[in-house]
Amino acid sequence: MKKIINTPEAFVDEMIEGILLAHPDQLRTPGDDPRVLVRADAGAPGRVGIVTGGGSGHLPLFKGYVGTGLCSGVAIGNVFSSPSSQQVFEATQAVDGGAGVLYLYGNYGGDVFNFDLAADLSELEDITTRTVVGRDDVASQPKERKADRRGVAGIFFAYKAAGAAAERGDDLDTVAAIAEDVVEHTATMGIGLSPTILPTTAQPSFTLEDGEMEIGIGIHGEPGIHRGMLETADQIADRIVGALVADLELTAGARVAVLVNGMGATPLEELYVLFRRVHQVLSGLEVTIARSYVGEYATSLEMAGASISLLALDDARLALLAAPARSPFFEEV
Amino acid sequence: MKKIINTPEAFVDEMIEGILLAHPDQLRTPGDDPRVLVRADAGAPGRVGIVTGGGSGHLPLFKGYVGTGLCSGVAIGNVFSSPSSQQVFEATQAVDGGAGVLYLYGNYGGDVFNFDLAADLSELEDITTRTVVGRDDVASQPKERKADRRGVAGIFFAYKAAGAAAERGDDLDTVAAIAEDVVEHTATMGIGLSPTILPTTAQPSFTLEDGEMEIGIGIHGEPGIHRGMLETADQIADRIVGALVADLELTAGARVAVLVNGMGATPLEELYVLFRRVHQVLSGLEVTIARSYVGEYATSLEMAGASISLLALDDARLALLAAPARSPFFEEV
Repeated sequence: MKKIINTPEAFVDEMIEGILLAHPDQLRTPGDDPRVLVRADAGAPGRVGIVTGGGSGHLPLFKGYVGTGLCSGVAIGNVFSSPSSQQVFEATQAVDGGAGVLYLYGNYGGDVFNFDLAADLSELEDITTRTVVGRDDVASQPKERKADRRGVAGIFFAYKAAGAAAERGDDLDTVAAIAEDVVEHTATMGIGLSPTILPTTAQPSFTLEDGEMEIGIGIHGEPGIHRGMLETADQIADRIVGALVADLELTAGARVAVLVNGMGATPLEELYVLFRRVHQVLSGLEVTIARSYVGEYATSLEMAGASISLLALDDARLALLAAPARSPFFEEV
Repeated sequence: MKKIINTPEAFVDEMIEGILLAHPDQLRTPGDDPRVLVRADAGAPGRVGIVTGGGSGHLPLFKGYVGTGLCSGVAIGNVFSSPSSQQVFEATQAVDGGAGVLYLYGNYGGDVFNFDLAADLSELEDITTRTVVGRDDVASQPKERKADRRGVAGIFFAYKAAGAAAERGDDLDTVAAIAEDVVEHTATMGIGLSPTILPTTAQPSFTLEDGEMEIGIGIHGEPGIHRGMLETADQIADRIVGALVADLELTAGARVAVLVNGMGATPLEELYVLFRRVHQVLSGLEVTIARSYVGEYATSLEMAGASISLLALDDARLALLAAPARSPFFEEV
């Protein structure tokens, strides 16, 4: 295990300390717990708050999406572990400006449990919450069990749209409905080439033989739907885009946003080779790419691999994606 | 060798094709050669052009820094190989708006040779050029041979400052002097943990034993100044920052910009653990961090490792760093 850390135990807190030192104008801790971060102007009266969170090890997910036109606060757990309900509740109190708070996070058991508990705590304090969970990983469950799918990189689209809605002053039900609408129209599938080594256990997140790939792998190394010899970039893109287009039932004339995401160790160069083929395939189907994002948006420490996400667009979703946003990891004007 | 590519031979051109498809509003090819890219509005009359370039495999270097307030054009070679003089010349012609062109690139033999030839070709066409080479890698040569140092991630500071100067309308000699001034006040040192595998040869860019690190390694795997067992993040930061502070002769009261750069496979989390210690050490020396950048700015495909760059600041350099900039890989307003 070769990592640039001090100790596995101190890793998460020292990373957070680094983030706060690097971005003091954008992020702050509302209380004493460094694992609760909010945007500098969190709690602005009348603005809907958006709280996200989950395990560490996925930067820029989740902390990277706290900022203007994005989320308002975040609660962070250990590597690949849920934050506590108390941490989520503390973020909720800090971001509430009287207009209520949306919980927007990925569909994992521990996170659901703790966010639900935090919602109960918030209700006792007269803070209204709504919950939308990202569930874009089409490889994790078939379409008839769509509600049980895991949330992966495609949650970026929901952050961007819901964050833009909150920023322009939409009320809680509207912001929640927008997040739900985006989640409903987002589909993602990933491929893994090599695992990350978990800092505390020194164990790999999954195992593959030499020359093998796994299609549909999750961002914690959850099993996918196909394991076989590594294919070419074009073959991989064809497989994934085919599955996503079918899942979203895209037809000629559709417009989409595309996110080609690196899992951690995959060079940006390879992501662009993938994007090239995604563009070719969608063009062939007469599907227009209206927004494109290529880079590391949701990682798994130093895992090698990539994912492709599509969001089916209508005018409303496109306008929300195009709105300005600014966080330590994402800036678009 | 596990890579998401089609063939090693097609890798560079397919990557560039992907970049152009993803960012059609920001980049264009002025002629038929896809390895020459310029910003969409290149050649604006009266604005000094800035051409950079070098081998592929370092994204976001070099293509990522072509845009508003940054470079105007780029010529790209094969992986870790110089572009041709003809390609540099083509970029020069495309970005020249009558005010001349600055060549700003890293100090490597092949690049120097080809940029110098392109300068000769440009002179025949009455295009005035100036040349400033990045040479920030303090591990590559001792201080008394500073002019022979290699250029690494710290060239980002020179792009940012020279780009801001060109954008506000400074003349060629001023833009060149600003780039030279920034290069003169920039120092970088890197650490390598594992190599990249070169696509065409399938060979590693360097070799290390299990558990070893190499301090001072170059971005193509050039040998460093110390090889030994992997140390903690704090020990690594202490070593590197100590060397940089000595090289720049920083004393209490100095202001700096810091860049903690990932080489490709190193998680962003680890870069923040490093940044935390950089901040501690500089604070202890009463050196103020006025700007901080943490992320992948100059990589070596999937190499694991990081580098730390410091730029000693005065008011002029700080103002240029803080100016707005926008490219496919870097946006700050």
